[in-house]
Amino acid sequence: MVKNTHQAKLIYLDYAATTPVDSRVIAAMEPYYNKLFYNPSANYQPAQQVKAALNSARADVAMTLGVKPSEVIFTAGGTEANNLAIYGVMSQFPAANLIVSAIEHESILVPAERYNHKLVPVHQDGTIDVEALAELIDDQTVMLSIIYANNEIGTIQPLQTISRLISDVRRVRQTKGNKLPLYLHSDACQAGDYLDLHVARLGVDLMSLNGSKIYGPKQSGVLYVSRRATILPQILGGGQEMGYRSGTENVTGAIGFSVALKLAQENCKQNSYKMKRLQKIFIDEIKRLLPNALINGSMSHRLPNNVHITLPGLDNERLLYQLDEKGILAASGSACSASKQQPSHVLTALGCSDSYARSSLRFSMGRYTSSSDILKTVKVLKSLINN
Amino acid sequence: MVKNTHQAKLIYLDYAATTPVDSRVIAAMEPYYNKLFYNPSANYQPAQQVKAALNSARADVAMTLGVKPSEVIFTAGGTEANNLAIYGVMSQFPAANLIVSAIEHESILVPAERYNHKLVPVHQDGTIDVEALAELIDDQTVMLSIIYANNEIGTIQPLQTISRLISDVRRVRQTKGNKLPLYLHSDACQAGDYLDLHVARLGVDLMSLNGSKIYGPKQSGVLYVSRRATILPQILGGGQEMGYRSGTENVTGAIGFSVALKLAQENCKQNSYKMKRLQKIFIDEIKRLLPNALINGSMSHRLPNNVHITLPGLDNERLLYQLDEKGILAASGSACSASKQQPSHVLTALGCSDSYARSSLRFSMGRYTSSSDILKTVKVLKSLINN
Repeated sequence: MVKNTHQAKLIYLDYAATTPVDSRVIAAMEPYYNKLFYNPSANYQPAQQVKAALNSARADVAMTLGVKPSEVIFTAGGTEANNLAIYGVMSQFPAANLIVSAIEHESILVPAERYNHKLVPVHQDGTIDVEALAELIDDQTVMLSIIYANNEIGTIQPLQTISRLISDVRRVRQTKGNKLPLYLHSDACQAGDYLDLHVARLGVDLMSLNGSKIYGPKQSGVLYVSRRATILPQILGGGQEMGYRSGTENVTGAIGFSVALKLAQENCKQNSYKMKRLQKIFIDEIKRLLPNALINGSMSHRLPNNVHITLPGLDNERLLYQLDEKGILAASGSACSASKQQPSHVLTALGCSDSYARSSLRFSMGRYTSSSDILKTVKVLKSLINN
Repeated sequence: MVKNTHQAKLIYLDYAATTPVDSRVIAAMEPYYNKLFYNPSANYQPAQQVKAALNSARADVAMTLGVKPSEVIFTAGGTEANNLAIYGVMSQFPAANLIVSAIEHESILVPAERYNHKLVPVHQDGTIDVEALAELIDDQTVMLSIIYANNEIGTIQPLQTISRLISDVRRVRQTKGNKLPLYLHSDACQAGDYLDLHVARLGVDLMSLNGSKIYGPKQSGVLYVSRRATILPQILGGGQEMGYRSGTENVTGAIGFSVALKLAQENCKQNSYKMKRLQKIFIDEIKRLLPNALINGSMSHRLPNNVHITLPGLDNERLLYQLDEKGILAASGSACSASKQQPSHVLTALGCSDSYARSSLRFSMGRYTSSSDILKTVKVLKSLINN
């Protein structure tokens, strides 16, 4: 339950859109607004103290991901991290191509359109068609960008399998004398609270993270770039962030992000366990009270906080409006595309019709979700449908 | 005086590098961390309340600048705003050219290098050579980017004169049938506390602002883009900020920025008056105690909080270190280039030698600077030089 100034009690089921900031994150940022406010690029001691705090935040992120601090670039959020990944690699190889999944976030799909790119299809449950992917990779492919866990339907992709596939391609290229690199980037913005982000285990070369989905501040984020990979900066100037992202550092944002990520990953299993239980209650209750409802996405490879359903024949915008009136906050798809009045490209990629997509609802749970919230939500949904 | 956790009393004279965040700004941001934390792109009422707050912040900024809210793009700081201005215009006209002053910030100079660009020289006092500028504009010039007030030497540029020059060029182009636009952009990041930012009076088409120089949060900023001008977005994705800057909005940053800008501009004359008085005390005291010191930059067209001097034959890095030890925090140039060990490109553009530049100090005053701070600083400087 999230308290709001206007309504005593709201049921927030849109944690995939954004999360409230953890009070420990707020407390960690607080000294850097007007006490240790100095520009970390200045040379005097108090500024060096701020720089040390920034570096310590970077080291904490690196530790959590199992990487080196020099591989962690603080960005202004997940969208910028995704843009930097695509631009950073592709602008070096104008003749090359990249492959992205058909269900990437817009902050991957739109930048990809600036380059030679191919879309890898997904199965009906939202998992990548790895065989199709293998066939799409050609001698000019320099990058794959595959979302770790989808923001709409919650499907988790087999990054390890894709990483092994890439290793095979690299070996073949070596024997052929093809010196073009082949990088695996993953948008892991939705993964932080529930999935393992240890880079070596995932096998990614670049990875985007977003503070505002893990109880950190909005427009805080990280792009991990392996020292094996080379990128060009997109935002140019004073050369901050090891030259990869200019601009006076968002000290509070970086520190807030590092605390949020640490908390998220430390409690990852516990968060996941709690959510799986709620997810089961949610789905069981939907099946019981709304037998016509269809669950979208994979059941076995799915974010534990995601419940995405279709209620055939019903208008999702109308339902969301009615839920809102009852104090239940949910979504039709991603918040980014909520205002665009277009059917979700994710559901289209699953082979769903427009009308099917327009009858779909996404519920994403989080830290303050209780089983009674879930039971009430399904009950209200049933009452709305029957009216 | 700025209180620090480690030293009871520091004399901070580097306000041009960054400012502490105003307590009213902090208070304005506070509700949006974990109460009204919703994604402003979501459709339910509490999120629309956040969107209304964001739009209200945009309207406040627009009101302060005398523009329409739709002309205000929130960015992650001044560097991103400058990058967006250059990229946003120039990427539409790959065959065209832009003209920037030789004393722009790196976040203009480095992006400019990606396009056909010309540098307009400055006079010895740091003011633009307007005649040289007039001659540099050719039929393919699409943009001029001229810093409003220089971040190192504080020189204020005659934007109105340049704007009139541009109007003349536009008229000539019209008679010739040259349909290429010609835009005036200004980096006004250092101007907010002391100079008029009313866009119609300045005659700019685009203007960058930075929260972290006006007692607002770091990595908050704005790019003003006149509706007469067209730009392309640099960061792509969900289409936030009217499509010009994707990514879940930095709600606290935008709100904090708008409050900071309002306070800065409301108190602009008063701030300026106070600083002019301190600046006079500072310069008089330097002349009295350090007769060898040379004041750089224009005396008549200068930010009132800037004192930039050269102490011939002395090593500025050593002096800054010694000042730091005495609790006095100043700079050799911009914080962005402080760590680069290169002489300032600004001083080079004024015709100063490397050794001259390496004997230069920038003092930038601000809200908590007192006359006793100034007197002490000059006294300490004298004692360091005599030792």
